Amino acid sequence: MRILILGGDGYLGWPCALHLSAAGHEVGVLDNLARRAWDRELGYESLVPIAALPDRIDAWTRVSGRRMDVFVGDLRDAGFVHASLRAFRPDTVVHFGEQRSAPYSMIDREHAVFTQVNNVVGTLNVVFAIAELDPRIHLIKLGTMGEYGTPNIDIEEGWLTVSHKGRTDRVLYPKRAGSMYHLSKVHDSHNVEFACRTWNLRATDLNQGVVYGHWTEESGCDPVLATRFDYDQVFGTVLNRFAVQAAIGYPLTVYGAGGQTRGVINLIDAVDCIRIAAENPPEAGEFRVFNQFTEQKSVGQIAQSISRVYPGRCRIESVEDPRVEAEHHYYQAAHTRLVDLGLVPNLMDDEFLSSLLSVVERYRHRVRAEVIPPTVSWRPNANVAAPRRVVSTR
Amino acid sequence: MRILILGGDGYLGWPCALHLSAAGHEVGVLDNLARRAWDRELGYESLVPIAALPDRIDAWTRVSGRRMDVFVGDLRDAGFVHASLRAFRPDTVVHFGEQRSAPYSMIDREHAVFTQVNNVVGTLNVVFAIAELDPRIHLIKLGTMGEYGTPNIDIEEGWLTVSHKGRTDRVLYPKRAGSMYHLSKVHDSHNVEFACRTWNLRATDLNQGVVYGHWTEESGCDPVLATRFDYDQVFGTVLNRFAVQAAIGYPLTVYGAGGQTRGVINLIDAVDCIRIAAENPPEAGEFRVFNQFTEQKSVGQIAQSISRVYPGRCRIESVEDPRVEAEHHYYQAAHTRLVDLGLVPNLMDDEFLSSLLSVVERYRHRVRAEVIPPTVSWRPNANVAAPRRVVSTR
Repeated sequence: MRILILGGDGYLGWPCALHLSAAGHEVGVLDNLARRAWDRELGYESLVPIAALPDRIDAWTRVSGRRMDVFVGDLRDAGFVHASLRAFRPDTVVHFGEQRSAPYSMIDREHAVFTQVNNVVGTLNVVFAIAELDPRIHLIKLGTMGEYGTPNIDIEEGWLTVSHKGRTDRVLYPKRAGSMYHLSKVHDSHNVEFACRTWNLRATDLNQGVVYGHWTEESGCDPVLATRFDYDQVFGTVLNRFAVQAAIGYPLTVYGAGGQTRGVINLIDAVDCIRIAAENPPEAGEFRVFNQFTEQKSVGQIAQSISRVYPGRCRIESVEDPRVEAEHHYYQAAHTRLVDLGLVPNLMDDEFLSSLLSVVERYRHRVRAEVIPPTVSWRPNANVAAPRRVVSTR
Repeated sequence: MRILILGGDGYLGWPCALHLSAAGHEVGVLDNLARRAWDRELGYESLVPIAALPDRIDAWTRVSGRRMDVFVGDLRDAGFVHASLRAFRPDTVVHFGEQRSAPYSMIDREHAVFTQVNNVVGTLNVVFAIAELDPRIHLIKLGTMGEYGTPNIDIEEGWLTVSHKGRTDRVLYPKRAGSMYHLSKVHDSHNVEFACRTWNLRATDLNQGVVYGHWTEESGCDPVLATRFDYDQVFGTVLNRFAVQAAIGYPLTVYGAGGQTRGVINLIDAVDCIRIAAENPPEAGEFRVFNQFTEQKSVGQIAQSISRVYPGRCRIESVEDPRVEAEHHYYQAAHTRLVDLGLVPNLMDDEFLSSLLSVVERYRHRVRAEVIPPTVSWRPNANVAAPRRVVSTR
């Protein structure tokens, strides 16, 4: 199968490209290298050193004997998108090519508008290119569990059957997103569902939980193949951040009460989910939604887990929650459809946590503690001042 | 009350500005004059001649003794939005300032992307300006009944109480929009709801039905105060189009089976709904939704009504539906909240239809039949070719 990975230079996109290539697919990588630019903007750096994209590609060819096509450009450039798809002729397009940080989108108005325009326009350009070139191309679009928010009813996989006043319909699951970034994904979902319904496209929307971990079988083959490891307040996800905090003796900073519960997924499983979705495409016209996570954990539970494998070395500390969100809430989300298709989950057990901590220990000399505390606030007045505070961490 | 009307030069915005001014409010008009530019782009013209914005404003001062402030600029320009709100100090912002045609948004990729970026970014800029300047400002945002689509369950006013697996929540009513334009309004609704929930803004989302008519008490005072009257395939709404078709002996072109049912509202009521919403603001933090229409009608019923008041002169003709939509469907939508606040509906009766036809008769020499037939198609291949066909109507 020919698979084009949009955002194939990122934290998830790169190991996904490797995984699909190793599974025997013909892989192309498309990226505008924006993620590296945002690090430079904010003064951050991946804990684990990452190679330049051409070096990554060369190393993979050396290790595996397999090549990858590369397209460097921006999804907001419709001509570039159209030309890349026409040149690569994919069967499947995997779309990671978005600004994916909630705090980044909440820095200020400019970052909010950038995030929504970047994500919505990029996705529209991809959808139009598919509709014009070949509507049979399967679009696998990364969404987020955060689109649903934390409703007081069970979260289903994208669709909900509603009975109301004696009548019944199957509707898109109602959304209540928690940031300008999460909203951009809600907008994408509506746009892509429209394209399936109106133009008979086929799409899989993967509402992904919080991804953690660093190692995959393929990216672990050679240091040049390593993917990025973020622990800063803007791009770092909770477990990876706690691991770094534990390693340097920094308190594990739980936001507020720590009862915020989310679906989480190991990077190994996240990239395998993409393979499973690609190898099992939906019907023409189908807007298929999978909830892509393997376990539900609260922030407090994750802190406890790290504390358990690092006995006596971790202090858990509550800091004021910079986000506007419920700190205690009901949370029960379905996630059976990927397992039905063959996903075998790698859970957040102590063995895994120890291996994650050993990665962090290896690079602890690179940790810069000043990028850990949250300065981007969801509150509007703080919001206006936030960008300067972020920039001052350079 | 100080009320700033965004898009105050448009079909609805202008008579709304007059109506609010006549009701004793201090009114400002903000517009980028884009609606006039889209006419030039597509080679269309309002059936009823419209005066330039400065002449409209001067005429209103002459007629009423009341003045209006004017701000000419683009909502995508955040600095302009911020400066205008800071200068005018509104209590209420009424937001009509969007690209509001479904066919325009479906011409091609460029028009789709323009519509979504224009509408989403403009609204975000307004929301950020309110959050930064004064969160007490009441935002009245024009949405559309088209956000809901045509679900098989009753449509409620913005929110839906859902029971699922023994638990209950109140959620945003699920959306299934029918065009890139309607999707842009869905995106806006999610963004504004987030701003209310997170920043404690107060907003009224008016999901408006299809507006028809031309005359209002204020705009009827002087020909210079007339609002526009669109009958072309892109900006014309169904009843206004049928009236023109009847007047020139053109068949009443019903799309497909004509069973498409929508909420409709007289222009007189539409502008009074804005007054009612402004004078009865929601609480801080409330995202309030009203369905702003007075009657449900199918396209076929509207054609029959016109035919009845023009006996023997109308031929109803079905043309292939250029849209991808259900031509027969369940439709039952709540619309009680504005009536509860005092709206007294003006219905689509024969007296009204006769008066509409007399407006059209007066200007029938200006009708250009070639702008009536639909050439913008919802189908992707037609879609690619559509813009040239539209441009050829110049």
